[in-house]
Amino acid sequence: MSLNMTLNNEAHFRAVENLVFEWARSIDENRVEDVCNLLAPAGRYTVISRFNQDRGLPLAIMDSRSADQLRDRIMSMRIANVYEPQHYRHIVSGVQIVGKEANLLQVRSNYMVVRTMDLTGDMKIISVGQCQDLVDISALSTGGDPVFQERKFVFDSRVIETLLIIPL
Amino acid sequence: MSLNMTLNNEAHFRAVENLVFEWARSIDENRVEDVCNLLAPAGRYTVISRFNQDRGLPLAIMDSRSADQLRDRIMSMRIANVYEPQHYRHIVSGVQIVGKEANLLQVRSNYMVVRTMDLTGDMKIISVGQCQDLVDISALSTGGDPVFQERKFVFDSRVIETLLIIPL
Amino acid sequence: MSLNMTLNNEAHFRAVENLVFEWARSIDENRVEDVCNLLAPAGRYTVISRFNQDRGLPLAIMDSRSADQLRDRIMSMRIANVYEPQHYRHIVSGVQIVGKEANLLQVRSNYMVVRTMDLTGDMKIISVGQCQDLVDISALSTGGDPVFQERKFVFDSRVIETLLIIPL
Repeated sequence: MSLNMTLNNEAHFRAVENLVFEWARSIDENRVEDVCNLLAPAGRYTVISRFNQDRGLPLAIMDSRSADQLRDRIMSMRIANVYEPQHYRHIVSGVQIVGKEANLLQVRSNYMVVRTMDLTGDMKIISVGQCQDLVDISALSTGGDPVFQERKFVFDSRVIETLLIIPL
Repeated sequence: MSLNMTLNNEAHFRAVENLVFEWARSIDENRVEDVCNLLAPAGRYTVISRFNQDRGLPLAIMDSRSADQLRDRIMSMRIANVYEPQHYRHIVSGVQIVGKEANLLQVRSNYMVVRTMDLTGDMKIISVGQCQDLVDISALSTGGDPVFQERKFVFDSRVIETLLIIPL
Repeated sequence: MSLNMTLNNEAHFRAVENLVFEWARSIDENRVEDVCNLLAPAGRYTVISRFNQDRGLPLAIMDSRSADQLRDRIMSMRIANVYEPQHYRHIVSGVQIVGKEANLLQVRSNYMVVRTMDLTGDMKIISVGQCQDLVDISALSTGGDPVFQERKFVFDSRVIETLLIIPL
């Protein structure tokens, strides 16, 4: 934990926390496209099971190798996919900076997503797990904002709804 | 996001976050009356569906136009209403300051309320959504605490339990 | 609340918050043993119902009077107990410092634990409630980390699963 304390440069911490919260709020406010601006152009976005992650198995249910690829996926969600109207609500906790290499911070947080179906009002926890992120803070020194170099959602359950159309 | 960073005056942020948490803890510790002191005398407290909010429809399931009106409602809950004993537990995340005008901060956060029935022990998520708050920080400069000028709970589901007797 | 503001020494607050998050992450990452290092050697760890706590009734479902006793319990969990593989996920919110005496801080936070069964993938909220902690910050002045002098999970429901084998 002493490591954590050393890493907790307050300005860095707040900027990172805000980045994590901004991602969640973009999706929850149905501005899903906006998350692409929070990912570095060559950044990676992945949603993978804890089971596969622990065993080094590569299969993920979402895996974008660039912000553009993620943008494509979201456009397909908007235009091509047919699905029941629904809202996500992210509850995020325990943001911690657990490592640092040059301008890249390793960040951990716990997440839960509650999905509400627009028509029936049904609420359901659809995913809980840990975010394992790599955050690039180079822009901070020139007054800019940090971005995700890697954003990985590792969900606890091996089972997932067939339909995970909106990114987490 | 650069906007957010500019707004994130650390002392302001912590005071605002504490105000949000204090509201939740007052209710969860069954000191519901105490939230009236966190609302400005002429402040407004609203619980409204995302559906109505998005369409500018005014119907809300709770709408108090002053701290006194909210106090009345809570007194009625204590004295007049008959309902099964229950506890609320707020889980709040993603507090962000997203705008500022003079001494008023626009604040966003995600919330979830889990209700536990006292007799049966049943736990249930009764509401998830976003808080859209206006926080008055004028008192900070004289060592005082911020208060809510507006506190609005926008819940994701169109459906709500008939019984929402305790304020969120 | 003015009290809270006075207590919110920023460096203290962040260290305390990190301690609370570290506990959660240790368990969620299946490094349960690590929580013993976050508890003072003569510290106390308790899991008790709100019902009993409110009435001063002593019966708790877990009650360790030292870090070593907690270590024993976890070893028994690893070696002796037979139970279905499962993961915990803590969602923690509303960390507040509500009192201070010498080097001991009174800390409150809300928690929720979602349990995912490893085989079936079933997700379930198994406990929600409040943490009532006493945190020793003496080590901060010499560059060390705070530890829990007391860590008490007060859960809202009177009913609990027979099986609470992993500590909260």
